[in-house]
Amino acid sequence: MNKRVLLVKRPVGWVDPSCFTVESCAEPACGAQDVLLQALYLSTDPYLRGRMNAGTSYAPGFELGQPIVSRVVARVLASGHTGFAEGDLVWGFLPWALRSVAPRGEGLQRIDPALGRPSHFISALGMPGLTAWTGAIEIGQPAPGDTVFVSSAAGTVGQLAGQFARRAGARVVGSAGSDDKVAYLVDRCGFDAAFNYQRTDLDEALRMHCPRGIDVYFDNVGGSTLEAALRHANVAARFPVCGMISTYNAVDDAGVRGLQAVLNKRITMTGFIIYDHVHKLPAYQARVAPWLRSGELVFHEDIVQGLENAPAALIGMMQGQVIGKRLVQVAAE
Amino acid sequence: MNKRVLLVKRPVGWVDPSCFTVESCAEPACGAQDVLLQALYLSTDPYLRGRMNAGTSYAPGFELGQPIVSRVVARVLASGHTGFAEGDLVWGFLPWALRSVAPRGEGLQRIDPALGRPSHFISALGMPGLTAWTGAIEIGQPAPGDTVFVSSAAGTVGQLAGQFARRAGARVVGSAGSDDKVAYLVDRCGFDAAFNYQRTDLDEALRMHCPRGIDVYFDNVGGSTLEAALRHANVAARFPVCGMISTYNAVDDAGVRGLQAVLNKRITMTGFIIYDHVHKLPAYQARVAPWLRSGELVFHEDIVQGLENAPAALIGMMQGQVIGKRLVQVAAE
Repeated sequence: MNKRVLLVKRPVGWVDPSCFTVESCAEPACGAQDVLLQALYLSTDPYLRGRMNAGTSYAPGFELGQPIVSRVVARVLASGHTGFAEGDLVWGFLPWALRSVAPRGEGLQRIDPALGRPSHFISALGMPGLTAWTGAIEIGQPAPGDTVFVSSAAGTVGQLAGQFARRAGARVVGSAGSDDKVAYLVDRCGFDAAFNYQRTDLDEALRMHCPRGIDVYFDNVGGSTLEAALRHANVAARFPVCGMISTYNAVDDAGVRGLQAVLNKRITMTGFIIYDHVHKLPAYQARVAPWLRSGELVFHEDIVQGLENAPAALIGMMQGQVIGKRLVQVAAE
Repeated sequence: MNKRVLLVKRPVGWVDPSCFTVESCAEPACGAQDVLLQALYLSTDPYLRGRMNAGTSYAPGFELGQPIVSRVVARVLASGHTGFAEGDLVWGFLPWALRSVAPRGEGLQRIDPALGRPSHFISALGMPGLTAWTGAIEIGQPAPGDTVFVSSAAGTVGQLAGQFARRAGARVVGSAGSDDKVAYLVDRCGFDAAFNYQRTDLDEALRMHCPRGIDVYFDNVGGSTLEAALRHANVAARFPVCGMISTYNAVDDAGVRGLQAVLNKRITMTGFIIYDHVHKLPAYQARVAPWLRSGELVFHEDIVQGLENAPAALIGMMQGQVIGKRLVQVAAE
């Protein structure tokens, strides 16, 4: 039997298990030109919170009673499309189900296993990696000696953003929500400094760890961290805005204070969505794959086993329990 | 006797007349290499509010008991500097006094009367004009057909920003604080639409006047107008941030809500300070002077007579009573 994860209730504030149902269902119908897929890895991402609302954030909301959809690595079980053959590895935006069908193979991207681990194609070698590169390097433009501050630094994007900035010669400082994450950033990812924002005053931490101020703030969280970064920013600082996790579950919008710093310090805040940069993915993959293979670039995956555990895996990620990229593995490679 | 305007009290919230004293004083001492000046026009500008505070905004605060300083057009009365001769017209950051001395002529800029009216060198042909150009054109990058929204549009910078954007082919919409200002923008400055924000719901006005959304928001005011512009912005909108007048007199910072739009709509907010762009002034003047002479570019000056009226002139400008550039004329040209 096939199995899938449905959104059955829209969350108000934090997501809880009652928002989901895991149910058995029929095997998908596969037409003559379609591609039948066995899911291997499901991606959990902060932006999925926005899609669980009724409105449109930058992607339309999920429909109630329908499966959660995210980036999924899959193996081709059968294909009526000349571009895909049985056994091929692909990724695409697919439903959270053991097996699904991509009509006429639409939206599927081929995975070249020679380039890297299949799961990396929805993380370090995929759009989250390109997100980190675009924000930290293309928008952030760190110069050697600049101080780059990354929030949610132990997350999928944050750990890569910091390492990319460090390769560009910057001093890199990260904030994260647990001492384990802080240790991971400093000991494994080579951050120059990191701090646990749950146990430190933000201003004190930034004064200590960014003594020459902040030149680039890679914003994953918004809220009070953004406010603190504005206070500690240098003149002409760049603020790539990649996410505002702190507001995703907020029912009320508290507002961001101290935005006058944008004027007084000539800050450029640039919101970006990686879909605008998709065309750069092949070049990004070619650049970064060797660094991953050599171990110069560290990337941690937190892999939960079993489709039935996908809702809890997603909720835990949203609650900040995870170091690195959380995936749900639903079948063996 | 000489006369000058001193700051004698730091304002909390709105500026009132008790912050100033106009007093008679000695004629300034002019050394052998110095330049003695007769002030003609004093500039009143929103940024002066920030300089009346104790701290530093982007310029250091004025000292208590010392004269207000702003851009002033002056005539050279006597010069020990080879670069300036009696009768020359100049501008510089000078004290609010009938006569003052520029030690060794430092900071004085020559005015070429063939290029335009002397008073324009501290407004449409000066730094405020360059401010409008930098924000509306260089940062805003309006494409033909884009919608450009300008707040505080009947002010010195706003009226020019809107007209520059319109020359670039944009649809230009302005907000201002009185029906007279709205009429001035539409009837004289050629704005496509304008509205009185004191008498209209912002969302309703922007829906009506920017039916295809906002591509460029030239922000002079911050606060609730910025929040509304974020709501009505298009994807990839540019927000040059030139001022945040609405917060200058605020004792508390209410915060800006809806900043998630920066992410969701990939907005770029760019604070800028014109001191970073001074080197572009000659090219700007050469470009714009013919437009002013031909009348293609409209620029309104509101000229108050007499140094003793300078405090009231400044307060009135800050309270939004003025269309265009308010100057204080303290002597005949």
